[in-house]
Amino acid sequence: MAEDPFDGAIDAVGAGGVAAQDEVDADEWLRRMRHSAAHVLAQVVLQMFPDAKFAIGPPIETGFYYDFDLPRPLTPEDLSTIQKRMRKEMGRNHAFDWREIPVADAREMFADQPFKQELIDQFSADAEQLGICTHAEFTDLCQGGHVESTRQIGPFRLTSVAGAYWRGDETRPQLQRVYGALFATREELDAHFQRIEEAQRRDHRKLGRDLGLFAFSELVGAGVPLLLPDGAIIRQEMETLIRELQEARGYQEVWTGHVARGELFRRSGHLENYADVMYPAMREDPDDEDPEAYYLKPMNCPVHMTLYNHTLHSYREFPLRYAEYTTLYRYEKSGQLSGLTRVRSLTQDDCHIFITPDQISDEVSRVLELVQTLFETYGMPNFRYELSLPGESGKYVDDPDAWQTAVTALRSALDTAGIDYVEQEGEAAFYGPKADLFVSDAMGREWQLSTIQLDLIQPERLGCVYVAEDGERRTPVVIHRAIHGSFERFLGILIEHYAGNFPLWLAPVQARCIPIADRHQDWAREVAADLRAAGLRVDVDDGNERMQAKIRNGQKRKIPYLLVIGDREVDARAAAVRVRSGDDLGAKSLDEIRALLTDLRRRRAAEPA
Amino acid sequence: MAEDPFDGAIDAVGAGGVAAQDEVDADEWLRRMRHSAAHVLAQVVLQMFPDAKFAIGPPIETGFYYDFDLPRPLTPEDLSTIQKRMRKEMGRNHAFDWREIPVADAREMFADQPFKQELIDQFSADAEQLGICTHAEFTDLCQGGHVESTRQIGPFRLTSVAGAYWRGDETRPQLQRVYGALFATREELDAHFQRIEEAQRRDHRKLGRDLGLFAFSELVGAGVPLLLPDGAIIRQEMETLIRELQEARGYQEVWTGHVARGELFRRSGHLENYADVMYPAMREDPDDEDPEAYYLKPMNCPVHMTLYNHTLHSYREFPLRYAEYTTLYRYEKSGQLSGLTRVRSLTQDDCHIFITPDQISDEVSRVLELVQTLFETYGMPNFRYELSLPGESGKYVDDPDAWQTAVTALRSALDTAGIDYVEQEGEAAFYGPKADLFVSDAMGREWQLSTIQLDLIQPERLGCVYVAEDGERRTPVVIHRAIHGSFERFLGILIEHYAGNFPLWLAPVQARCIPIADRHQDWAREVAADLRAAGLRVDVDDGNERMQAKIRNGQKRKIPYLLVIGDREVDARAAAVRVRSGDDLGAKSLDEIRALLTDLRRRRAAEPA
Repeated sequence: MAEDPFDGAIDAVGAGGVAAQDEVDADEWLRRMRHSAAHVLAQVVLQMFPDAKFAIGPPIETGFYYDFDLPRPLTPEDLSTIQKRMRKEMGRNHAFDWREIPVADAREMFADQPFKQELIDQFSADAEQLGICTHAEFTDLCQGGHVESTRQIGPFRLTSVAGAYWRGDETRPQLQRVYGALFATREELDAHFQRIEEAQRRDHRKLGRDLGLFAFSELVGAGVPLLLPDGAIIRQEMETLIRELQEARGYQEVWTGHVARGELFRRSGHLENYADVMYPAMREDPDDEDPEAYYLKPMNCPVHMTLYNHTLHSYREFPLRYAEYTTLYRYEKSGQLSGLTRVRSLTQDDCHIFITPDQISDEVSRVLELVQTLFETYGMPNFRYELSLPGESGKYVDDPDAWQTAVTALRSALDTAGIDYVEQEGEAAFYGPKADLFVSDAMGREWQLSTIQLDLIQPERLGCVYVAEDGERRTPVVIHRAIHGSFERFLGILIEHYAGNFPLWLAPVQARCIPIADRHQDWAREVAADLRAAGLRVDVDDGNERMQAKIRNGQKRKIPYLLVIGDREVDARAAAVRVRSGDDLGAKSLDEIRALLTDLRRRRAAEPA
Repeated sequence: MAEDPFDGAIDAVGAGGVAAQDEVDADEWLRRMRHSAAHVLAQVVLQMFPDAKFAIGPPIETGFYYDFDLPRPLTPEDLSTIQKRMRKEMGRNHAFDWREIPVADAREMFADQPFKQELIDQFSADAEQLGICTHAEFTDLCQGGHVESTRQIGPFRLTSVAGAYWRGDETRPQLQRVYGALFATREELDAHFQRIEEAQRRDHRKLGRDLGLFAFSELVGAGVPLLLPDGAIIRQEMETLIRELQEARGYQEVWTGHVARGELFRRSGHLENYADVMYPAMREDPDDEDPEAYYLKPMNCPVHMTLYNHTLHSYREFPLRYAEYTTLYRYEKSGQLSGLTRVRSLTQDDCHIFITPDQISDEVSRVLELVQTLFETYGMPNFRYELSLPGESGKYVDDPDAWQTAVTALRSALDTAGIDYVEQEGEAAFYGPKADLFVSDAMGREWQLSTIQLDLIQPERLGCVYVAEDGERRTPVVIHRAIHGSFERFLGILIEHYAGNFPLWLAPVQARCIPIADRHQDWAREVAADLRAAGLRVDVDDGNERMQAKIRNGQKRKIPYLLVIGDREVDARAAAVRVRSGDDLGAKSLDEIRALLTDLRRRRAAEPA
């Protein structure tokens, strides 16, 4: 559920009047408590600001809000005062009295409330009576949905004030939106704030800064994350993993650069259907519709199909799987950019698989197996699929037969593979239906990552053919698929999934040697050199701080293993092994340590947590 | 020496009159033979085309040419006739008679030769007498440089006719240029043509096509090679090698995408000094000098410096070595593009090393060691350096003190490292001097690859600082270096260097199993699976062709090892090992084969040739 759905907000309170708790289900009761709290909020604001103009105050997923036009900005102190007065009003147990009145009476009643007048205009188009709700001295235009009285409202807390345009329209007045969180029980309210705190603790933008993983620069441009050395290590490990998995499954890597001519994207249909998210053209003469104009690639598909066309292929080569690990560019609106999760540079594990129509089901099953293997390695075993179908809009390539064939084949492939999925109309790519993967992270949040797309349209438009078993030339089916979504976005998700505690195979520094005193430095360096020779990323903290401070620094840097070295360890050719979580594994010989770490790396194991 | 230096051509014949062989050195004698042959060529052309207009006829690196304006295009048959008649005239042993005459006489003598009139205009600006040379019935305007008589001219062959503009100026008439090859001895002439033939045999454009390594597409655009799967394998191995070498030497990989805003390239000086080779800007409004306009990066340096500026660095972190393996884009004129050796997409092993001024010498030495290690691995142990210094042109950033410091430091670094180099004025980058590496390939041809550039200018312009040992903030010196040049260009060079016979570690297919009959296929597949499990790239030729044809196909594909499997090999759990060159290593057990191949790969050994 979206946080600020203007239309939805109006509908959500349309469930009629006032109800007792046993008349409605628990979800509806919670919604009614939240909506009722919004009324009490408005009541108190009007007490404090008699000139306040009221907009709307719906329930939302975690509580409620109300939009006001006020003579001055609300301060945190105001919020605290409002909250206290709301609790007091609730304690007075005012009854909610909902009734309908003629439109003309409503106009008169809200004569000094311009936003309410607009709402009356809207609602009176198909109604002669309008709802109002009164509690204590306060009356609001309201389609209903309340508890019986204010003492029934559950535990809540006002959380913030934000700017919001009337009806979400940037040309209309900006209002102040007061948010409150409200749940049925105190425990649920506390859990809500704990979740928020945990999400803030894991925020990839904050961790990315603290751990030195990535940065943005005005000079390079919004939406293009710059990976610092430690971030680049993680990204490189991600690429190595998917390359290994795909090589083992018969994918062939190709390389096709980052630009192509407009003519290609015209033929593929991208300029017609996708131009709004492409970077502007590069052309010498800006006035000219230069056919030589270059574009940054927003997708690889037309280029992979061009490469495919370089030679004549036979069905015997199928499935022919082209893989490329390259960066695509999509010009998302700057307001939509956010850390790594909405970016303009998307480095994808982008593959295109050329098959015959009767290979669809088998090949989609193979892709599903690859998806499962990959996300299990990342400790994300829970996922579900949505099958995205075309909708009514004009953005879909107009070829009903091809759509029908593609949808049927993809549905049957998912069914054959025994995958659970829901169907979503209007979510397809412009060239075909797709299966979108939603993966749950360690906090239970869902992320849309992989897509497996069937394409019966572009291959024909770009003239792809193969020699079939009967010697005829036919158009191949193409599966488009990128499993991580993009490395940039997936890195952001991984940072939050692991809360920065990357498993050893991904960790930028896998182990740190901590000599307790200067006389332990030689052995510490020897240990580090030995482990580095085994291909591990190991450093030495040879600073002047005390051991405990060095251990804290290492834990703060979230280094999986700290190898503490004092007199005893030098004598025993060993190190005392501390896990990042604080666990002390005791002294281990260098051989044991090397075996432990290389084994964790080889298995890409999830420990240490 | 360039093939067509108009001014140089005029100078080259200015060495005065006629000489006997013992009066000049061997190089000068060869030049005189070549120049004299050009006169005989002109003599014969005038016999055949009395209306011919003569331009110039200098000696060049491998022979001579003469430019003519003729009533019709010369055919191959014409060339053959001209060559025969030249030999006949040479046999008549005409003496060359060189003398000076007054300018006015020269004008009259060449009254019907407009190009000669232009030359007279030019030469008479600072001379009252002009040289002419007569042999047999033919007289040419000529500053001299001849052998005594035509029978002294060495063995030659006319090679081709090409179009050439008068004075290289596209607005002037196009002439026909007849090329001849001429050497002191028949053996040298034959060797010259053998070298040409060998170069054609190794031509990377032809081999790239035959071996399926890369392709170009009009739709993607000129100058951007698309790597087919086998080409992408080689490129990936190249990247893996340099990544390993650089990681072991303390380089830290970063990732910074492919675009940046115009503002950055304005600050760095690239828009001022380098705009002519940048792709046009991407901007929403073409009429607007949009400061938000994006450019494809032509170089990484300003972006790496921006990344450097993300945190405050200390001298203790130096040398701080940022490495990136990314594609840069430079819009070379389409007429200058050629296969992989002149491209618009340049994927570089591009590194920027931040150092204090007193670290220059040590760090340049470390780079020189890396260069040597890399090219020895590719079997290219012969190279030399040129030290590129600024020239008179206005393209150099105007900061004489900084230039002086940079040039002195780089020169001293090369001296300290004991490297031989020549100095070249006018070849520096706009921001500093550089040491350019010229590597010799297997044919002895030189390629300019690596550059090691010192930069005292951009770091200051982009505000880079470090905290020095005394606590002051200072501007670091930056070394720019890319060792392969670009992977694209180096791949082209490697194809020719190896004549497509890539050593095992680079070979797209490292071994092929060839079962002689169907009953040998199981063991062939088992061998292939075993070697693949060891990480080797192995395929099986399970077609219906006979063994000899399969071996020939494998050799044509230039696969290093062919593993032939018949009854005897199945029984012995072995394969008969054929090297691509044709050598037969006899039957070896699977264990022996695995050990042989994995050892070659691990050592990145040059064999099998």
